[in-house]
Amino acid sequence: MKEQITALQAEMKQRGIFAYIVLTEDFHGSEYVGAHFKLREYLSGFTGSAGTLVVTENSAALWTDGRYFIQAAAELAGSGITLMKEREPETPTVLKFLRDNMPENSVLGFDGRAVNAAFARRLENVLREKKIAFKTDEDVAGIVWKNRPPLSKQPVFELSERYCGETRAKKLSRIRDKMRSEKVKCLALSALDEIAWTLNLRGGDVDYNPVFLSFLLIFDDKAQLFAERSIFDDNIVSSLQKDGVEILPYDEIYEALSSLRCDVWADPKAVNCRFWNSLSQAKIHGKTSPVQLMKAQKNAVEISNEKSAHIKDGVAVTRFMYRLSHTIGHEKITEISATELLEEYRKQGANYLGQSFEPIMAYAEHGAIVHYSATEKTNAELQPRGLLLSDTGGHYLDGTTDITRTFVLGPLLDEEKRAYTLALAAHLELLGAVFPKGVRGSSLDAIARKPLWDNGLDFNHGTGHGVGFLLNVHEGPQRISWRFMNDPPIEEGMITSDEPGIYFEGKFGIRHESLVLCEKAEYDGFLKFEPLTCVPFDPAGIDKRYLTIEQIARLNKYQKWVYDTLSPFLPEEEREWLENLTKPV
Amino acid sequence: MKEQITALQAEMKQRGIFAYIVLTEDFHGSEYVGAHFKLREYLSGFTGSAGTLVVTENSAALWTDGRYFIQAAAELAGSGITLMKEREPETPTVLKFLRDNMPENSVLGFDGRAVNAAFARRLENVLREKKIAFKTDEDVAGIVWKNRPPLSKQPVFELSERYCGETRAKKLSRIRDKMRSEKVKCLALSALDEIAWTLNLRGGDVDYNPVFLSFLLIFDDKAQLFAERSIFDDNIVSSLQKDGVEILPYDEIYEALSSLRCDVWADPKAVNCRFWNSLSQAKIHGKTSPVQLMKAQKNAVEISNEKSAHIKDGVAVTRFMYRLSHTIGHEKITEISATELLEEYRKQGANYLGQSFEPIMAYAEHGAIVHYSATEKTNAELQPRGLLLSDTGGHYLDGTTDITRTFVLGPLLDEEKRAYTLALAAHLELLGAVFPKGVRGSSLDAIARKPLWDNGLDFNHGTGHGVGFLLNVHEGPQRISWRFMNDPPIEEGMITSDEPGIYFEGKFGIRHESLVLCEKAEYDGFLKFEPLTCVPFDPAGIDKRYLTIEQIARLNKYQKWVYDTLSPFLPEEEREWLENLTKPV
Repeated sequence: MKEQITALQAEMKQRGIFAYIVLTEDFHGSEYVGAHFKLREYLSGFTGSAGTLVVTENSAALWTDGRYFIQAAAELAGSGITLMKEREPETPTVLKFLRDNMPENSVLGFDGRAVNAAFARRLENVLREKKIAFKTDEDVAGIVWKNRPPLSKQPVFELSERYCGETRAKKLSRIRDKMRSEKVKCLALSALDEIAWTLNLRGGDVDYNPVFLSFLLIFDDKAQLFAERSIFDDNIVSSLQKDGVEILPYDEIYEALSSLRCDVWADPKAVNCRFWNSLSQAKIHGKTSPVQLMKAQKNAVEISNEKSAHIKDGVAVTRFMYRLSHTIGHEKITEISATELLEEYRKQGANYLGQSFEPIMAYAEHGAIVHYSATEKTNAELQPRGLLLSDTGGHYLDGTTDITRTFVLGPLLDEEKRAYTLALAAHLELLGAVFPKGVRGSSLDAIARKPLWDNGLDFNHGTGHGVGFLLNVHEGPQRISWRFMNDPPIEEGMITSDEPGIYFEGKFGIRHESLVLCEKAEYDGFLKFEPLTCVPFDPAGIDKRYLTIEQIARLNKYQKWVYDTLSPFLPEEEREWLENLTKPV
Repeated sequence: MKEQITALQAEMKQRGIFAYIVLTEDFHGSEYVGAHFKLREYLSGFTGSAGTLVVTENSAALWTDGRYFIQAAAELAGSGITLMKEREPETPTVLKFLRDNMPENSVLGFDGRAVNAAFARRLENVLREKKIAFKTDEDVAGIVWKNRPPLSKQPVFELSERYCGETRAKKLSRIRDKMRSEKVKCLALSALDEIAWTLNLRGGDVDYNPVFLSFLLIFDDKAQLFAERSIFDDNIVSSLQKDGVEILPYDEIYEALSSLRCDVWADPKAVNCRFWNSLSQAKIHGKTSPVQLMKAQKNAVEISNEKSAHIKDGVAVTRFMYRLSHTIGHEKITEISATELLEEYRKQGANYLGQSFEPIMAYAEHGAIVHYSATEKTNAELQPRGLLLSDTGGHYLDGTTDITRTFVLGPLLDEEKRAYTLALAAHLELLGAVFPKGVRGSSLDAIARKPLWDNGLDFNHGTGHGVGFLLNVHEGPQRISWRFMNDPPIEEGMITSDEPGIYFEGKFGIRHESLVLCEKAEYDGFLKFEPLTCVPFDPAGIDKRYLTIEQIARLNKYQKWVYDTLSPFLPEEEREWLENLTKPV
């Protein structure tokens, strides 16, 4: 058995713990976890982005999903840790495994800060019949990690009203209105993007997410920000003070929560288990935080900024597309070097801050792997044939982008063209949707997928997700997916992705993604989408037989808009190329 | 104050009741209530189909919805009862009214048998802060009704396997499988259509619904049917006995429920308050009854029967359409006489049993009143111009129909043609939908409504409802409506209506409704709809500019199928007329 595991088992034994769980989470349920939080990786050796390690007195097992079966098997080889392939028929869930393998009256341990409150509740429900006790007040696994990287402490910067469009005081006042309606004395926030949005601050503590490690308690007359003092400069501290926000040490949040005796609003899906349990003296209103919807509805300044960010981003990606089409077949270019090349173009944009997520640059059959990320091992050389799926995005001071284009590198097979065109039809259907206020993304998704369904095709991911303003590239509350119920209606000012795809395993993958803004439609009480993403679709992939007249008209309108918008920013030769590329099909 | 109200107030006073509620419900939450249950009408004088009467020590008020404001005002005039216009901004809900007007610690009364359990729960929640006591064990209002009609006792008949396709024993065995999975010892049914379906019996105790008043308790090894003994003939009694079903007196159900000490499955949305409260010693599993979904998925015999019922119904409605087009302008015909004429045609069909709901025959501006029912007062004469909306249906031994066609009686305005065509486009979009298993009606509704939404149009009712096999014309669990979440997926074998509409108040209304059957599509894992309703659309209403090529092709295919199916059953002259009418547009 791997030495880290036996060390953990020794610590468990000292404390009478039968089983110990290590998830892949930070204290805030962030999408990416920083170096300090890679405890599961340290203990197991498995480096994938998703996995759950369960160590018992005499065994260790790691659950991960289909993306990682091969990698995990290799990385776990010789460790003594059993690979548990999630969703395979013979694999029990973690919950079922614990229920079946823990003796009655034994003890389950985990770090209550690194486990979501809602998941902890499910554990409790499942293990109640076995009378399992929970020990969650200690990071037992962390004890065995010598030389553990410290918590990230990246500096925080303030977004001026010119960028965010609404002062912190105004936001706090609107939040307090919601608190009064809900009749609570305190709103307890843990989601890092909600805190960053509320305070008009940005940080760098989570990969790709411009947020900082913190908790925020908002009261009627003041607010308490629990965060590392050193990440704020004096100007920010005094600016926060002016708005009634005091800074307290990050790890004092739990003590502060446990002293609350009033009505407190906290979201069980957003907070960690210890956070939730610390509210033992409070009367909890366990509902989605009001900040989620406020943050999703962008104001006029944010929208105007997003538009200019998307023009810069459009220039970068379009120039990359030109360069690709003039490079492949002449110079060697690979998935990785293409990614770097695109990043060079993005860096030329004003106020570019960095990538908004881990870029996907997937050639040929790699395109069918939905979360593909090229490594030195898999890095494919781009050839003058087939398709390159490129899903990338950037953060600018004036907004966040997320775009997928599938580039045609040379001759295509008929089935590639058909798939390219049908996925484009789906993309254009959602882009052109008009709908009354109140309609949810789960309904709109059927409009998007109809061109695929009509042909017996579908894809296994959502059609759209919310996108933050210089914040997380994946945010709620809205989404476009028929598989999810209880999604809230799409509202004016929301930015959502429109990204249908078609994937043929081992062959090729296609996705067409633009961000779209929800606006009032010309009819009273109706809404529609306007594209923000400004990058052409390559007509070489299109077989017009698979498009309706309406879809062709919408495509041509989009392509013309792209040309009109980008052409002032392009060198002569690239402009001519773009003009030709965006001619009506 | 009306004498019935003062008599009730006297009874209330004797019992220390401050407020008493009378809804418009029978003991089973049926869609229509029989004469015995028209207590609210007796007390208030208001004859509409929806309303809630609240009588307090010193006041009386009646809530009803917008369909009935004018009628209720007239019928309540001089009664001393205040009209409460539901959903008007100044009108409190019944719950709010009670909360605001009942003194602390006072008593609220209602007949627990005639109030749904879920609604009673909401009353309790709202009135808890006022410490209101509930008195629900007595039909206090019923006491004042002298000469009250008795409970309906219409005879029951048995459906042979030739009609229903599955024996009672087989159905009970499948239900018991579900009970075992849920780990209950008893399933307690109250919904009359679920009981009728389970036992392969039909009755006549509720207008338009071929059901009989009863409750059913299903145990592992037996079943108890609580119903009036005299409605069953001896053959049925012994047939029930053979399958382990004993008949007990209808009103002994509550005592039987209160003696249950085991795990009992009961649906709080389907049972009445006293039913629910009587389960005080049981461990209740409060979930939707398994019978709902089983009943909705029609078997091969039911489907084959439904198809022949729909051909007979198609012949009747098509012949009516022919007759209309050759009568109007020559003979006097009104909404009411047209309804009678259509009924005459239906009666010519084999095994016709009667109407499946209150027929709607609505000329011109009456078509915009969604639940219009012609009365002697409103009865319009049909003129050789404009549109006649006809929404009717029948019960046959071999199935239930529900069809709306909007007949073109003569020249149309452009806006009538546009609306007729766009509603038809919506109808055809849903009819042609192909979708993967798992998709819900709330998603599919967006596909149906898209042609309307694209033009800033919409309508204020669902696009589709489930339909029973010789049972209720409105049944769950599926529906096609974006406004409802948590609807279950559409499954193979479900019969659902497809009935989009467009309504212009004071002008005209259009609805196109067919019943459609969900079947496997040609692609693996995908489903589609096939029409059951077999009646042409009148091409005179169509403006082809508002249809896509795909919609036109689908329409022509449907019209051809109607002609091919019906022509063998039509007289020569009518066949020629139909051939002409169904030519490709």
